[in-house]
Amino acid sequence: MKLSEIGEFGFIRGISERVGKPEDLLVGIGDDCAVTALSPGMVLLSTSDMLVEGVHFDLAWSDPYTLGRKSLSVNLSDIAAMGGIPKFALLSIAIPPELPLEFLERFTEGFIEQAGSFGVTLAGGDTSSSRGGFVISVTLQGEQYPELVVRRSGASAGDIICVSGTLGDSALGLDMLRKGERSGAAVMRHLDPLPRSDLGRRLAEASIPSSMIDVSDGLLADLGHILAQSGRGAIVAIDSLPLSSFFKQTVASRSPEYRRFPLSGGEDYELIFTLSPERLDEARSAAEASGTAITVIGEITTAGGILLLDSKGEHYTPEASGYDHFAIV
Amino acid sequence: MKLSEIGEFGFIRGISERVGKPEDLLVGIGDDCAVTALSPGMVLLSTSDMLVEGVHFDLAWSDPYTLGRKSLSVNLSDIAAMGGIPKFALLSIAIPPELPLEFLERFTEGFIEQAGSFGVTLAGGDTSSSRGGFVISVTLQGEQYPELVVRRSGASAGDIICVSGTLGDSALGLDMLRKGERSGAAVMRHLDPLPRSDLGRRLAEASIPSSMIDVSDGLLADLGHILAQSGRGAIVAIDSLPLSSFFKQTVASRSPEYRRFPLSGGEDYELIFTLSPERLDEARSAAEASGTAITVIGEITTAGGILLLDSKGEHYTPEASGYDHFAIV
Repeated sequence: MKLSEIGEFGFIRGISERVGKPEDLLVGIGDDCAVTALSPGMVLLSTSDMLVEGVHFDLAWSDPYTLGRKSLSVNLSDIAAMGGIPKFALLSIAIPPELPLEFLERFTEGFIEQAGSFGVTLAGGDTSSSRGGFVISVTLQGEQYPELVVRRSGASAGDIICVSGTLGDSALGLDMLRKGERSGAAVMRHLDPLPRSDLGRRLAEASIPSSMIDVSDGLLADLGHILAQSGRGAIVAIDSLPLSSFFKQTVASRSPEYRRFPLSGGEDYELIFTLSPERLDEARSAAEASGTAITVIGEITTAGGILLLDSKGEHYTPEASGYDHFAIV
Repeated sequence: MKLSEIGEFGFIRGISERVGKPEDLLVGIGDDCAVTALSPGMVLLSTSDMLVEGVHFDLAWSDPYTLGRKSLSVNLSDIAAMGGIPKFALLSIAIPPELPLEFLERFTEGFIEQAGSFGVTLAGGDTSSSRGGFVISVTLQGEQYPELVVRRSGASAGDIICVSGTLGDSALGLDMLRKGERSGAAVMRHLDPLPRSDLGRRLAEASIPSSMIDVSDGLLADLGHILAQSGRGAIVAIDSLPLSSFFKQTVASRSPEYRRFPLSGGEDYELIFTLSPERLDEARSAAEASGTAITVIGEITTAGGILLLDSKGEHYTPEASGYDHFAIV
């Protein structure tokens, strides 16, 4: 069955029947706007991410349910990176005429279930036909007290740099998908990333991080944003980068090129944050409470740029594509 | 020059330098989320619209500057239809690799200038490459006191139905564009619609409308949404529909099919609202203050459906595509 057979309004009605209506949602799907209330004293956090077929996902390997989850997760990760509490989502999709209705239903099911897991309500959006592939545009709104919001710009020289979870898995998973593999831990980390919502919020609510960002473009690029906006530099100990056991096992048998994934591979959706060294024990407690490992990977410096330090104590200044020779596994 | 030559970050930096930073924008473009404050006591209105090349616009006749304006205007119209005050926009675009950088610069210039005219600040968004045409997804946020927000569901039997401006012009303009015309009042109404932001807000702040919606899908379809959500019907006097002088002149010499445009033509972005008859004078004052004409076109009834009443007093029940024979010009 195609969307054209039940129509846009039938499809939207089907969605709105499956969505909850919390007290702070005054008007949900079906009017000109969604109307929502913020918690008293809090400010609004808003983020938008677009996922484009052939650019961000390939329908040859993305099942619609998992794609629905991921299209919310990448936005949840942005709210987490500022320490916000995710609340309401707007979902807009451009749909190629040939896409089966079952695909759309599984997609929205994945989106709505992931929303439910993170306390998010689908409050509105738009549907359109598409002449060129499936396009997903999600706006996610969250809230937080203004003094607790964590920006990219607050890192100070002497702060230590932490990262949650493990790095490089998503890039490895994407590489495996491109080579025809369709399962395994790395593949699933790419297709169904877990945003660090609870960790980001706990850290922010304890005012621990001086700056924070999520890993969407890769450690070096995203840490680079913190450094640029804080006017600082960093030393990163490459032997300290947290790697999953499946990453280590898989990469050990492959070409050295894979070893750059933890530095430059995108879409891990881990949190990078900086903090004063004396707050590290509190950060570890917050991480433990949220069930997430955190690892100290370096230190903020006064000088600009990122210096990579290997186990022999030698320094390298990475360039855009110049760190293939680093042996971090 | 192509976007690839200055890069996504260069393009975004260029945009952020041209955007203002009002006091209620705590964090704008360049962090993981935009952070904004609502006015005390107000609730948040959010709307998203997607514009897809080949579906909503054709680059053969849409110049980028005007397309930028329109992509905000269609969202401004949704905020107006609930009586909200527009505040912050998130702009996401998927860009075909061959699109010239000049196109993107003109597009964002149109968007930002239209934003400025309506007191809106661009606070964030996303850019992506596209494999299939230019795709625009805008989320617009506004605010209003909750008791002043106007919904679709409040129409009562006996309320009169008003519409702002004139109907059918945008459909006529689209038809003319498809036939090769590139200028004229109807064409410009299609390409660069004027959202009724001031009128919608004035009406709402005086608590005049019992229900309101904007004309995006056509009078019958959009009035139909009010009726469905209010559980009511309507009588519409087709001879009373407001028509522009250029519409009357152009359509007089064309086939009778054009005469349905004021009933079923979309994208006029006028406001349809219902009100108690004794509030009509106040509505006229509000309309005058906002420089917009309003016209009474009918009345809300208890029975479901829309009855169209012609000048001879005869009734017709319109069907999805069954009103071609109505001679309203």
